[in-house]
Amino acid sequence: MTTTAKGPEDLIAAYTQARAATEALCATLETEDYVIQAMPDVSPAKWHLAHVSWFFETFLLRAHLPGYRPVDERYAVLFNSYYNAVGPQFSRPERGTLSRPTVSEVYAYRAHVDEGMLALLEGMAAEQTAALAPLVMLGMHHEQQHQELLLTDLKYNLSVNPLRPAYHDRPLPTAPAAPLTWRSYEGGIVEVGHAGEDFAFDNESPRHRALLEPFALASRPVSNAEWLAFMQDGGYATPTLWLSQGWAAAQREGWEAPLHWEQIDGSWHHFTLSGLVPVDLDAPVSHVSFVEADAYAHWAGARLPSEEEWEHALGGLPIEGNFVESGLHHPVSSGLTLGVDGYRQAFGDVWEWTRSAYLPYPGFRASEGAVGEYNGKFMLGQMVLRGGSCATPASHIRGTYRNFFYPPDRWQFTGLRIAKDG
Amino acid sequence: MTTTAKGPEDLIAAYTQARAATEALCATLETEDYVIQAMPDVSPAKWHLAHVSWFFETFLLRAHLPGYRPVDERYAVLFNSYYNAVGPQFSRPERGTLSRPTVSEVYAYRAHVDEGMLALLEGMAAEQTAALAPLVMLGMHHEQQHQELLLTDLKYNLSVNPLRPAYHDRPLPTAPAAPLTWRSYEGGIVEVGHAGEDFAFDNESPRHRALLEPFALASRPVSNAEWLAFMQDGGYATPTLWLSQGWAAAQREGWEAPLHWEQIDGSWHHFTLSGLVPVDLDAPVSHVSFVEADAYAHWAGARLPSEEEWEHALGGLPIEGNFVESGLHHPVSSGLTLGVDGYRQAFGDVWEWTRSAYLPYPGFRASEGAVGEYNGKFMLGQMVLRGGSCATPASHIRGTYRNFFYPPDRWQFTGLRIAKDG
Amino acid sequence: MTTTAKGPEDLIAAYTQARAATEALCATLETEDYVIQAMPDVSPAKWHLAHVSWFFETFLLRAHLPGYRPVDERYAVLFNSYYNAVGPQFSRPERGTLSRPTVSEVYAYRAHVDEGMLALLEGMAAEQTAALAPLVMLGMHHEQQHQELLLTDLKYNLSVNPLRPAYHDRPLPTAPAAPLTWRSYEGGIVEVGHAGEDFAFDNESPRHRALLEPFALASRPVSNAEWLAFMQDGGYATPTLWLSQGWAAAQREGWEAPLHWEQIDGSWHHFTLSGLVPVDLDAPVSHVSFVEADAYAHWAGARLPSEEEWEHALGGLPIEGNFVESGLHHPVSSGLTLGVDGYRQAFGDVWEWTRSAYLPYPGFRASEGAVGEYNGKFMLGQMVLRGGSCATPASHIRGTYRNFFYPPDRWQFTGLRIAKDG
Amino acid sequence: MTTTAKGPEDLIAAYTQARAATEALCATLETEDYVIQAMPDVSPAKWHLAHVSWFFETFLLRAHLPGYRPVDERYAVLFNSYYNAVGPQFSRPERGTLSRPTVSEVYAYRAHVDEGMLALLEGMAAEQTAALAPLVMLGMHHEQQHQELLLTDLKYNLSVNPLRPAYHDRPLPTAPAAPLTWRSYEGGIVEVGHAGEDFAFDNESPRHRALLEPFALASRPVSNAEWLAFMQDGGYATPTLWLSQGWAAAQREGWEAPLHWEQIDGSWHHFTLSGLVPVDLDAPVSHVSFVEADAYAHWAGARLPSEEEWEHALGGLPIEGNFVESGLHHPVSSGLTLGVDGYRQAFGDVWEWTRSAYLPYPGFRASEGAVGEYNGKFMLGQMVLRGGSCATPASHIRGTYRNFFYPPDRWQFTGLRIAKDG
Repeated sequence: MTTTAKGPEDLIAAYTQARAATEALCATLETEDYVIQAMPDVSPAKWHLAHVSWFFETFLLRAHLPGYRPVDERYAVLFNSYYNAVGPQFSRPERGTLSRPTVSEVYAYRAHVDEGMLALLEGMAAEQTAALAPLVMLGMHHEQQHQELLLTDLKYNLSVNPLRPAYHDRPLPTAPAAPLTWRSYEGGIVEVGHAGEDFAFDNESPRHRALLEPFALASRPVSNAEWLAFMQDGGYATPTLWLSQGWAAAQREGWEAPLHWEQIDGSWHHFTLSGLVPVDLDAPVSHVSFVEADAYAHWAGARLPSEEEWEHALGGLPIEGNFVESGLHHPVSSGLTLGVDGYRQAFGDVWEWTRSAYLPYPGFRASEGAVGEYNGKFMLGQMVLRGGSCATPASHIRGTYRNFFYPPDRWQFTGLRIAKDG
Repeated sequence: MTTTAKGPEDLIAAYTQARAATEALCATLETEDYVIQAMPDVSPAKWHLAHVSWFFETFLLRAHLPGYRPVDERYAVLFNSYYNAVGPQFSRPERGTLSRPTVSEVYAYRAHVDEGMLALLEGMAAEQTAALAPLVMLGMHHEQQHQELLLTDLKYNLSVNPLRPAYHDRPLPTAPAAPLTWRSYEGGIVEVGHAGEDFAFDNESPRHRALLEPFALASRPVSNAEWLAFMQDGGYATPTLWLSQGWAAAQREGWEAPLHWEQIDGSWHHFTLSGLVPVDLDAPVSHVSFVEADAYAHWAGARLPSEEEWEHALGGLPIEGNFVESGLHHPVSSGLTLGVDGYRQAFGDVWEWTRSAYLPYPGFRASEGAVGEYNGKFMLGQMVLRGGSCATPASHIRGTYRNFFYPPDRWQFTGLRIAKDG
Repeated sequence: MTTTAKGPEDLIAAYTQARAATEALCATLETEDYVIQAMPDVSPAKWHLAHVSWFFETFLLRAHLPGYRPVDERYAVLFNSYYNAVGPQFSRPERGTLSRPTVSEVYAYRAHVDEGMLALLEGMAAEQTAALAPLVMLGMHHEQQHQELLLTDLKYNLSVNPLRPAYHDRPLPTAPAAPLTWRSYEGGIVEVGHAGEDFAFDNESPRHRALLEPFALASRPVSNAEWLAFMQDGGYATPTLWLSQGWAAAQREGWEAPLHWEQIDGSWHHFTLSGLVPVDLDAPVSHVSFVEADAYAHWAGARLPSEEEWEHALGGLPIEGNFVESGLHHPVSSGLTLGVDGYRQAFGDVWEWTRSAYLPYPGFRASEGAVGEYNGKFMLGQMVLRGGSCATPASHIRGTYRNFFYPPDRWQFTGLRIAKDG
Repeated sequence: MTTTAKGPEDLIAAYTQARAATEALCATLETEDYVIQAMPDVSPAKWHLAHVSWFFETFLLRAHLPGYRPVDERYAVLFNSYYNAVGPQFSRPERGTLSRPTVSEVYAYRAHVDEGMLALLEGMAAEQTAALAPLVMLGMHHEQQHQELLLTDLKYNLSVNPLRPAYHDRPLPTAPAAPLTWRSYEGGIVEVGHAGEDFAFDNESPRHRALLEPFALASRPVSNAEWLAFMQDGGYATPTLWLSQGWAAAQREGWEAPLHWEQIDGSWHHFTLSGLVPVDLDAPVSHVSFVEADAYAHWAGARLPSEEEWEHALGGLPIEGNFVESGLHHPVSSGLTLGVDGYRQAFGDVWEWTRSAYLPYPGFRASEGAVGEYNGKFMLGQMVLRGGSCATPASHIRGTYRNFFYPPDRWQFTGLRIAKDG
């Protein structure tokens, strides 16, 4: 998907591609896999499929396509995620209790919305295109976000099953880990945040100045081998390494390793989208929470970078070609091709926890209307992640992107890269 | 299904019929409907289908069929309900988080078990038949119990969906309610409990003497019209009518009517297996808990009967012919044919709450081995229900049957018949 | 306290004695000990002191003493336990969050109520005495119930403190346990329940016939030595011995011994009102729940007696003289004088769990008015205990008394006596 | 208390003053008031009294006073708040279940520690003074922090009591609110954080550069009159004003006004340390959470200031003389003297929520050893407050001070001052 759409034709092509990419991700699913919700944080696959359609229906078709008739008025509630300005929402932790609409009906709903969207896009006059294109673009990037969530939620949903069913049978890519080196940055007053005409979410704006002191950043994310050293040195049993909230979570949940790791006959394995396999020591560690990442950095005598440091150092790098493919790139779990130059891994292996709380940028204003609830209201209690993961669509990755999750969250493809002062 | 099986042929016929009846109940289901679990008390339909097969596999095939090979050893854990002596169990409240085995795989599991069972039954010598027939019979009655649970759980699972999907499109039967009259009984020393050679669960034994004082019993269960009078008289808002635990549940859960009732434009409707329909005032009230039933009886200046009173008065009555059909009879919700003689309703409309706690009969002994966990360990905290409901297989109904649920449970087809002293 | 009061003078004497006995129990308390509430089931000592006064104030002074002026109208809510017909109640689990009224103010409240009660009792004409005496008697027996609860709650409240503070410094009585023998009873139609003019709670009525099959009863409660044998035989680790609800509680709570037991240097101690002391193997086991008692009986190849069996066998025995003292007898924990004849222990060592659910007797009617909430509304989900404990006032013990607690409750002085058929 | 202690004599004087100030705060308490804990976030007064002593005992007496003998070794666990490096801790939410040690024993513990501390301080050689003075100073500032917590926890503990008992009978100060005006700041690169030799907590360091864009700051905190306008405009019922986490909290807790507000006959009152009184419209609003403050700012078309903006604008202002008194100043609730110049209110009325997450300053290093757990491990999930409240000891207030609480917390004296860009 191109990130800047100039006219209706571009929009139509991009829309069609984004929608198809979502469905392509479901090619290996059984009907039953679409239904389940193994914890409140994740959603059933069919909910994702429907919700992204609801987004187009609510903000574009109902508002701007004369004569549009919804498939079912009750979907307005069922597939509203959290938009209070739109109306009530079905209880999030109970999404997995709904067998209907069926998977077929959800696909029919998608087709119905697609039909409406194409009618809308094809019929738009130039000024309407200018007016609506931002909303269409938002809907497509929203769809891309859910492509990643669909995969991470599926991985979690499958992981709780003692049968350990694989999402697909692709082998995991492997490559030796590059040695970890440090690159230094002088700091000073730098600019961060989104600039230009390309699409970006509101939370990436406004572009603004930031003051950085001199710092150094590791050449690549922390590897499984390094994480294992932390574990073997008692990292999970040493409270003084941990933030208080992290230690409480680790004790309450019994953490002794990253999520999805399990020991089989004394050897560490992890559950991946390709099933249960031995941990690849060269791959970046994944499925660690912010509080684990912070404890690791503490143990390593380092710290996490701030999001401004990260963006200044890595945000301008080109996306490596090997990651650019239509739809998702490398939809596999924590076992990714590591480039010979560690910096390639800035984009596309694991989301990298930063030390920055997810807060509004100076001068931030949420969008007008209901879409203003998209990002702004979540700017509390979460931490920023940067980069992108193996489950992020390549065209969805950019240097100013701010991802965010709660400090104990572990079900995303989340890792870390360490930093230090001076 | 005949309740006494004489030889292998009878057993095979009965087994085949019982297994087919279970699958027939699923004819109208979508694949997705098999997967969900809308609260911890209910199970997914595919779990029921698998668990009853696990029962035969565990207690007959593994133990008695030489060379039997299970489909998947992990099913031993996944489909064990609560038999600690057999081994560990997958967490009950999380059964709805499992997409695998798929519905197809579960049917294949059923077919595999059926194949084994037929091989076992066909190959049995006479003395083996005598030895194993009780276990086979137990397995079939167990399957019948789950036929009812499959329906009640499905009803609940569908009910939480705002789309209010119907299980089937059969119209609900209707008939005028007979006037409620009282029939008196002298009491004295009577005998209750199972006698004879026909099948019965261990909790119906031993047959024993009970002392009854004179009492009277209503000619039919309480109707929806009568329940509505209770509601309109403030029954749900008058704490002095309620047991303490009942009042607490009613406040906590916000009860204002039976489960599944909702007011639409000022008129009471209820969700049934045929969808959302107006409440039929002539039908017996259903989906009320013990504590609601007790409050009603208190309000009516009456009481619930003891299980011994119920069995003495109604346990010997013949099952009305119109209820006898293969498989289930009247798999519909609370809108059942009412005979002209109210006593017909003793069997087959709603389970009737009694005032008796579910405790072991004098002299009760649980069966030896793991099947001893079938009933005995649940003899605490539950109340006895008698009769049978529209979802009970006709051949599963008998006068000595002891059903049991917790005092606040409402998702079964449960109603009440009032009694009084003297 | 005499149990039948003939005239105002008797009533006054009995009232004065009952009230004084309550306060005598608090002689060793620090002010702080009156305030705390270590779990929702227990109440602070000062709440008990106030609530029993509220009972007299509410049902006698406000209703029958012209010109009575309450100390504080807000006490009507603060000290109402559960009488919905009287009005709202302060949240029970939060009683321990109230520092006011202070202990001194509570004693002043008691004195104020006593003054009113004496004015009422002294001023009553004969017919008023006849009319009000039952309520006064009820208030005094209510006060006696709370004397026991005050002690058991104090014991629990002190037990959670790592300092293990003792309630008093009296040594525990000791005596060798008599050998356990069996006494047989023929059964037949017997009469149970309260008869005569003496005081009894409404739940002990009406006296009625019961049919008993032949049974045998142990000569004394189970001892600590016997319980230790159960423990050492894996009783707490064998699920097949347990009721399902019991096993769940044992796992959830991590039970490995009775409440208050702890191992010190490999030797079992228990926390008593006299502090932490070694377990006396000869004493009756105490602080076991119904579900533990049931598992023990199962393990011992026996069962618990029904409450009718217990009453028939032991209810008519005289109370041993050594237990009769004013106020409480033996306010100590599980280390009681064992008579040479085990039957003496029927009264006064530990409450004995029966196999009977706490349900209304045939023909039971709750009292009219608010005091009707005293007992009836709790007749669900609890099990009957018979006898009396070392914390029960001697004059409060009688053969028809029905005590009741929930199956997992352990903080009372509760033990068991086993029975068997035939 | 002077904030820089030069020699043993100064230290002794400061120590003595700090300890006496704590006890002076308890002059009006009943014994019972010391014991209770009305929610997990607050602690009993006697726990505060003991814990601050434990701090001196643990970090100074045990480590540095030869021959020191603790009163009770078990206090090491009971009064350890959260120092994992020191050892285990008694469960925080259950502090209110402990009646022992009694209040008298706690005061004896304090005296014992004081005796030890004086012996230590009087006997120190010069070089030891230099070495230990920082720890002594830390202990005294720690004691001051708990002086404020003691008051805020007491207020909360008393507030849940329907008797609404007052802490003291001092009248609340009143004064007209100054008009709200805006003062503009140019921003640029500024310095924030602690500098110099005076005492400061580790979280105020290191002093570092920050880049501020132009901003404006209100001349005084938001008043109750202004808050009432927010309420009357539907502020608590408009989800689009709120952060998602805030809206969830507001719905779950039923917030309709600041904590402690209640309507009496249509007129707003609030519970204060002086009891229940009408809300003073001129006083700064208090007892609002971060999420309420943020919603208010949103409603007002403004925002909260960052902590750097706050410190740059207000941190250098002198503390007004009228606030400087030994011990606490104005220990009253939200009804404080407002100066004619609103800027006076920067210090000493209410803590002011900022938009800054509580995170480590660039270059922050926690102290070595167990005291390193003092601040650093809480740098996650909380928001920074600046200024100081009516319950903050005057000598404890300074411009670089970083207070921090969780976004939904309301039991502190917390208000807000609004800011805007440019």
